[in-house]
Amino acid sequence: MKRTVLGRVDCPVGRALDEIGDWWSLLIIRDAFDGMRRFGEFQKNLGISKGILAARLKHLVAIGVLKTEPINEEGAFEEYVLTKKGRELFLVNLSLRQWGEDHCFSGTEPHSILVEKANGRRVPRLALRGHDGNELDGSTTFVRKVADPSSSAKRSRSKAAAAAKSRV
Amino acid sequence: MKRTVLGRVDCPVGRALDEIGDWWSLLIIRDAFDGMRRFGEFQKNLGISKGILAARLKHLVAIGVLKTEPINEEGAFEEYVLTKKGRELFLVNLSLRQWGEDHCFSGTEPHSILVEKANGRRVPRLALRGHDGNELDGSTTFVRKVADPSSSAKRSRSKAAAAAKSRV
Repeated sequence: MKRTVLGRVDCPVGRALDEIGDWWSLLIIRDAFDGMRRFGEFQKNLGISKGILAARLKHLVAIGVLKTEPINEEGAFEEYVLTKKGRELFLVNLSLRQWGEDHCFSGTEPHSILVEKANGRRVPRLALRGHDGNELDGSTTFVRKVADPSSSAKRSRSKAAAAAKSRV
Repeated sequence: MKRTVLGRVDCPVGRALDEIGDWWSLLIIRDAFDGMRRFGEFQKNLGISKGILAARLKHLVAIGVLKTEPINEEGAFEEYVLTKKGRELFLVNLSLRQWGEDHCFSGTEPHSILVEKANGRRVPRLALRGHDGNELDGSTTFVRKVADPSSSAKRSRSKAAAAAKSRV
């Protein structure tokens, strides 16, 4: 199931997707944010086979997104709990939620909402603000890739050439 | 490939994931944000089979995340361009990037970064601020589900019962 995104080893998006592993994993993480902890809860909610769920949970524990905690003193049952690394997927989950709210429901169709515990109000919209406070998007940002050594060598050469030219 | 998340029809995260469809779709969307437009560019970058790529592109066009534009006047070749709906996946892509930057690279390992066009600076961190300006996360928010009619009927009944009791 896991694929390696060979084309873009310097890309954090690709690495994040590679690491999370697959679609089910994001749904399990969503359920964990919703407070689910037990194998049976995930299984019932996702309608997923026990084999696939067990494999996905094992993977999420292996990469440190979930950890297991014993339910009772005998340790006969375990719960799955988000780690710090797992909890930091909050914005991934939230941005999928916001897009889903915007695009996957008709105007009147009810859906769940995310609420602040402190005041019971629906959370404000998520947005990326730039250094001047303006909202940023794909048209006002770009990805700066890691320069490979050969291209930086090329740049140095052309800089040197430009400097030489300016001295003429 | 597409699965329906039967367990949670009122959940925007589940619907978003259902609609986007699969893992490859998120990688194609990432590449589109990086400026790729041509079939051959996606294919080369992702190392994906032509058949899978064609099917994924067709799906993304069908759900209105990508649209096709002719390259030349004869319309013999097409490019794939993000629609408004597709461009609004910016925060999904960005939140995956931020998590990947935080968790999928060693301290000294170089990776690509997202930069503001206006000033050439790396974008500020993405964060959800609550109504009082504090940063929110999974521990300070909760999902309020849509009450199903039977449970709201139950609540009305128990309210009525409580009211009846208070009148005793």
